[in-house]
This record gives sequence, structure tokens and C-alpha cells, in this order.
Amino acid sequence: MKRSDRLIGLTNYFINHPRERINLSSITKKYEASKSSISEDLDILNNMFIYEGIGTLKRTPGAHGGTAYIPFFDKGQSRKCISNLCEKLEDPERILPGGYLYMSDLLGDPKIMNEVGKAFATAFANKKIDAVVTVETKGIPIAYALANFLNVPVVIIRRNLKVTEGSSVSINYVSGQSQRIQTMVLPKRNLQPGLNVCIVDDFMKAGGTITGMMNLLEEFDAKVVAIGVLAESIAEGHERVINDYMSLIQLKNVNEKAKKIEVYLGSYFH
Amino acid sequence: MKRSDRLIGLTNYFINHPRERINLSSITKKYEASKSSISEDLDILNNMFIYEGIGTLKRTPGAHGGTAYIPFFDKGQSRKCISNLCEKLEDPERILPGGYLYMSDLLGDPKIMNEVGKAFATAFANKKIDAVVTVETKGIPIAYALANFLNVPVVIIRRNLKVTEGSSVSINYVSGQSQRIQTMVLPKRNLQPGLNVCIVDDFMKAGGTITGMMNLLEEFDAKVVAIGVLAESIAEGHERVINDYMSLIQLKNVNEKAKKIEVYLGSYFH
Repeated sequence: MKRSDRLIGLTNYFINHPRERINLSSITKKYEASKSSISEDLDILNNMFIYEGIGTLKRTPGAHGGTAYIPFFDKGQSRKCISNLCEKLEDPERILPGGYLYMSDLLGDPKIMNEVGKAFATAFANKKIDAVVTVETKGIPIAYALANFLNVPVVIIRRNLKVTEGSSVSINYVSGQSQRIQTMVLPKRNLQPGLNVCIVDDFMKAGGTITGMMNLLEEFDAKVVAIGVLAESIAEGHERVINDYMSLIQLKNVNEKAKKIEVYLGSYFH
Repeated sequence: MKRSDRLIGLTNYFINHPRERINLSSITKKYEASKSSISEDLDILNNMFIYEGIGTLKRTPGAHGGTAYIPFFDKGQSRKCISNLCEKLEDPERILPGGYLYMSDLLGDPKIMNEVGKAFATAFANKKIDAVVTVETKGIPIAYALANFLNVPVVIIRRNLKVTEGSSVSINYVSGQSQRIQTMVLPKRNLQPGLNVCIVDDFMKAGGTITGMMNLLEEFDAKVVAIGVLAESIAEGHERVINDYMSLIQLKNVNEKAKKIEVYLGSYFH
């Protein structure tokens, strides 16, 4: 097989298997090429991945070594995409009762979700993350987009348990400004204890939902090493109950009556 | 830029932009290459995509023409992956009360979801689909995986409406063998009327949930052109309320008491 063909096959493989180590002999076998040829291929791929702003190939020497594609995306490209998203969110027709924002159309777009996943994967690239956790429903596509790049599983906390999945841990928590008591449930077999986890969600106001998730995760001895929210709503005079998180979009002065809203890039871009 | 570098960049572009047409001049501009060079690149890419079993490049001539990557995945590779999944599902520890099966760990694996998305994208490649519809919660990752390959949005039907998203359509339906009355809700602005839609879900027994979705979608004048379920449970003496669907996995003779289950490849592979 020609080098040009191998490079196409290898690009497809690495893009579809982020953070998965493959050893040199598997590649030489698949493409019937010498180790030195494949080694040169990997150099070419690495340089081009860096040029395109999509990450690097990490090569580990030794008998158990191999090559893994580590996604790390150009911040300029993220900024461009999220800025586009900000513009769309500025539409006053999106303002919902309670200071929420209609985002279902954007959350339903797999391409936008991929861009959101890329930004978080880059922001958290150097953290050791074993699983991405979210609570149903709207944070789910963000969780999968991120988990895909990190090559880790997604764990979904439920609002209520329909079918018994064995013993579960549940907590009650007070949801943000609505002050309503809500429930979260996670079956024990869905998350093994002692993992490093990343929490993601679509929207954060006071942070009650994320605090609830953190409390529930404590019961699983999980260590929350990263928190990412797509959009946070910042209201003057309201204090956050959590501090250490990353946002891609910030909403300020959401005014239901005047139908006005200010949308900015979030903390990832500051 | 060398051909080898361009091929890497173009592979990355096409894999990440399925079914999105790009015109030749955008490519020549980006890579500062002649039209004839890029045209040769596209031939090389197309041949290698076919060789790797991941689809083809579809080229449309003319002023508004261009090239789009049409994903179409090798059925042998799908069979291998779904067979693996079947083996995992055969574990009697997975049997849940009511004849359901514990699948959350598999649904939480983004790589497995991608494989499921690939199979459905191939099965439905020749249908004109405008949106993928599912009902929360477990069908969501399947919907996104498929929608990603089809380059269409995902619409999620909710079990209940927490925050008002404007006027909604809701229906009550009887859920399968449990004979419980359940609700489904879809805000009107989440789905424009008259679209061709594909329904997906993780699990089907009698088909009550999918019938519910179909009834709700009628209110949006949507035409259901395809239905895909990851796993269907076939019980003797039970009749399906829907017929025209595609499954990847079939469960037979789920026996809670004897802790036995038979798992087969679904109708896609027949």
C-alpha cells in the first residue's frame, strides 16, 4: 500500500480512537509496511495534526509502548464557534420564564455539541478523568461529546428511577433560585467507587444542581476534578455556591420583562 | 503543502463533516493547491474510504456542486462489534425485574454508541431523514451518534416538562406490558411541522413507547421514515404493535426466575 493511502487510513483510525494506544506492530501488520515506514508516517501525521490544530500523536517507547492520538484543539477555532453560538443566544425570543434560555435547538445540533466537547476536552486535557458525569436531560449530549474525546464512559444521574437497577443512592437538593426540592438518583452499579470524575451540564444559575451532583458523587467516593458548564447565568447580588468550574458562555442581565440579554464568552476564553 | 499533508487534513475534514458539501474552490484555497491536484486527492480519498469500509465521497458537478462524505459502514465490522455486545448482554446478572436488561454501562460507552450509530446510519443511508427523534433518557446517545453521521438535528421528547418552553403538545400512552399510563411532551418550537423523521430508542418490548412517539409526531405532521432500536425483546405470544423497524440485537426467552437469556443479532443482520 502506498504512503498516501496509509496516511488516510491512519488519520481515520486515530480521529476515531482518541486516547487509545495502538502498538506499532498492529499498524505494520494492518498496512503491510515496515516499522521504519510507519514510523515516518506517524511523524507526518503528528506534524499535520499540530498544523490543523486538532492535537498530537503521543508515542510511548518500549515493549508495551505505542501511539495514541491526544485531542487538543486550537482555541481560536473554539472561540470562533462559541462566538457564533453567543450571537444566536442573544435573540430575545429565547428568553424563557424564570430567566432561563431556550437552547434546545442548539443542544440538538450534533455539530455544535462536538465543538462544545472539543473545548472542554482541551480545557481538561491535563486532568486525569475516569468518567464524565451529568444529570438528565440536556447535559447528556455535552457529556458524550466530551467523553468521546477523553475516551472514558458517561454516567447519567437520573431525576427519578423508573425501572429498578438494583440498589441506588439518592439525594434531595434545593434547585437554585426556584428553591424547589428535587431528587437525584444513581444506581450503585452505574459508577464504581473512588473514580476521578468530570461534571458537565448545559446551564448553571446559582449552582444548586451541580452542588447536588457533587453531594451525590461523594457517596461514591468520587473525586470531582473538573466541572464544565456550557452557559452560566450571572446575576448581580447572587452568589455562586460553587467556584471552581469552567464555562464557555456567560449570560448577564437576563431581563424577562424588557426581553433583553447580554451574552459573552465564558471563563474558558478569559 | 505536500499531497501527504493535504490527504491527512482532508481526511480529518471529511470524517468530521459527514454529508456536508464543500466546494472545490474552498479546498484549493485552504491548501493552496491546483484544482487538478485536489481532484486527484479526492480520487485517492474516495478509493481509500471504500477500502476501509467507511463510505464514499460523493461529487456533484456544476457551479453549486462540491464534495460530500457519505458514511456507509462495512456490515462485517458492525456484525463483529454488535456480536461482542451480544456476548456481554448474555450475562444473567444483567436481567432486571420485568424482563428488562441492565445496559447502562454499555449505553454509557461512547465507542459502543458510535458503532450503534454507524450501523443505523448505514441501514438508513438511502432514506431522506430531516431529524432523529427519541424519548428521554437512554435513547439519547444513540440518537446523537446517528444524527452525527446523518448531519441532522436531534429532537428529544420529554417525559414531563419542567421549564416552560412555550406551547407544547403532550400525549398519554400505555407503556407495553406494564400497562401503565405515561406521558410524553414535545414543545412546539422543538420540531418544525412536516419533516421526515427517524425514531430511535434503546429497548423495545411490545412497542408501546414507540407507538406513543409516533402518535405524538403525527401532531407535528411528521412522517416517520425509519425506526431503529438497539435491542428488542421477543416474547412468544406477544404481538408487536409496530412492524416496520430495524433492530441490532434480539433478546429471546428472558427468564427472570431461571436467570437465563438468549441474545442474537437483530433484524439489520438478517
